[in-house]
Amino acid sequence: MARTPPLAPEWQVSQWFNTPQSLTLAGLRGKVVALHTFQILCPGCVSHGLPQAQRLHQLFDEKELAVIGLHTVFEHHEAMTPVALKAFLHEYRIAFPVGVDQPSEVSGGIPRTMRLYGFRGTPSLVLIDREGRLRHHGFGPEDDLSIGAMIGRLLG
Amino acid sequence: MARTPPLAPEWQVSQWFNTPQSLTLAGLRGKVVALHTFQILCPGCVSHGLPQAQRLHQLFDEKELAVIGLHTVFEHHEAMTPVALKAFLHEYRIAFPVGVDQPSEVSGGIPRTMRLYGFRGTPSLVLIDREGRLRHHGFGPEDDLSIGAMIGRLLG
Amino acid sequence: MARTPPLAPEWQVSQWFNTPQSLTLAGLRGKVVALHTFQILCPGCVSHGLPQAQRLHQLFDEKELAVIGLHTVFEHHEAMTPVALKAFLHEYRIAFPVGVDQPSEVSGGIPRTMRLYGFRGTPSLVLIDREGRLRHHGFGPEDDLSIGAMIGRLLG
Amino acid sequence: MARTPPLAPEWQVSQWFNTPQSLTLAGLRGKVVALHTFQILCPGCVSHGLPQAQRLHQLFDEKELAVIGLHTVFEHHEAMTPVALKAFLHEYRIAFPVGVDQPSEVSGGIPRTMRLYGFRGTPSLVLIDREGRLRHHGFGPEDDLSIGAMIGRLLG
Repeated sequence: MARTPPLAPEWQVSQWFNTPQSLTLAGLRGKVVALHTFQILCPGCVSHGLPQAQRLHQLFDEKELAVIGLHTVFEHHEAMTPVALKAFLHEYRIAFPVGVDQPSEVSGGIPRTMRLYGFRGTPSLVLIDREGRLRHHGFGPEDDLSIGAMIGRLLG
Repeated sequence: MARTPPLAPEWQVSQWFNTPQSLTLAGLRGKVVALHTFQILCPGCVSHGLPQAQRLHQLFDEKELAVIGLHTVFEHHEAMTPVALKAFLHEYRIAFPVGVDQPSEVSGGIPRTMRLYGFRGTPSLVLIDREGRLRHHGFGPEDDLSIGAMIGRLLG
Repeated sequence: MARTPPLAPEWQVSQWFNTPQSLTLAGLRGKVVALHTFQILCPGCVSHGLPQAQRLHQLFDEKELAVIGLHTVFEHHEAMTPVALKAFLHEYRIAFPVGVDQPSEVSGGIPRTMRLYGFRGTPSLVLIDREGRLRHHGFGPEDDLSIGAMIGRLLG
Repeated sequence: MARTPPLAPEWQVSQWFNTPQSLTLAGLRGKVVALHTFQILCPGCVSHGLPQAQRLHQLFDEKELAVIGLHTVFEHHEAMTPVALKAFLHEYRIAFPVGVDQPSEVSGGIPRTMRLYGFRGTPSLVLIDREGRLRHHGFGPEDDLSIGAMIGRLLG
């Protein structure tokens, strides 16, 4: 990990699911945050990323670790609408809060939080420490032992 | 297996993907047919049914076994549109022909082929012999050894 | 498959487990036979070959398919003794008949059935048809769909 | 975790593999220790426990985490000898140090370290912190995320 990790930028979300109110990164200061980006038609997200996020949500105490999903649609925009996301979350029994990444000003472009964070694609996993600093930024399938150890270090 | 299995009814399809022309069950007489029904937001279809259908398509000679997908949407109609199906087939690299089950006359109802065959849900797998008779009708995850053996018997 | 497959040679076994009497290939004529070779300290046998043999034993009717294990020890002879095999069969709940391949005349050599059949190593799977002819000889992990289809064809 | 966890007792080992010299728990003070007990004919050890121990050994820096195997034979003593263990470690490519738990004074009894620690069976996993205190004692399959997080906390 970098010596002085940068602050994670605030996310930009147009709509939330699984939470009664909007969530901000600033409002989660004091907790470790696991920000998991996905698209509902991304095979690696469905088979690996989202199940891992669900395991994180089940294993850790919500007071210590906030698991946040972010639907960062950068392709097939007409298929991966908020309506389809809602059905998906229901069918896959996703219980943690999920935000819709604010669409680009340009039709069909990269959504805003994805651009701010420089996500390379989906799934991506970002770990943010209690002070709001970016401590891990991974792309693609990641190992449970390794992610568990990183979170354990941030909590310890 | 039943002594004199009934003829499988002709499917009713509104749109095809992965085939230059419409396919009919009658036109496949002489081949064994594996008809696999699914919905793109059905977790068991994505994790078990469709990968098994892809393995069938890769393993067997197309001259002997026709693997046909059928998108039987009976819930979340607004999310599982043909546009979303097209994106799904692309992302999951589904290469066998897939038809869209003809929607019900009643908005939000059970689509027509699903009703004709009496599918209980998705995924369902139907095996039809070279004479067009219904030889297997399964619902939910099915064992590769068992499905392989049934197809081997029908081909043998 | 070959046009006129050769007859499978009779196996040579020094000791049997999970059967009240010795079994010969000749005595199984009329059934399809799945002969599965393994060693108890062979990782691929323990993770893939033996579980597949157990699934075969559970799925098919014993009157149609005889699943036979063969402990073909060609390395670590001092570790993979019949005493160790017996404990292994108990711990892994192997219920089908298992023979110990007759050791070589030369200490530490290739056992006799392994030599007769020309097995390349473990796990190997041989399928023998109802007339005693060799219809499949595979080495290493094999696909359930494919093995199921072969057996289905032999039974069909 | 307990408020003041007890010190872990020193292990009693009759023979070591994969290390040029005997290892003591006292000599590892300053590192976190993952002590993994197993038997070579224990299915849950072979399918889950040992692969997890190998992943721990690959993931973490040996200067921070010492992964130690312990062959605690409490059944089938005649089959699970040090000779068989040596062949097993070779075939399964186990690279971390493995000790043979000192046999009981009574023939066929519970070996000594197993008795000292009160292991309920195999696989068992014990985590010991840098000060030599017992921080986790698990029996049976354990989740990678959970074990990773525990080790991360002990290292953090």
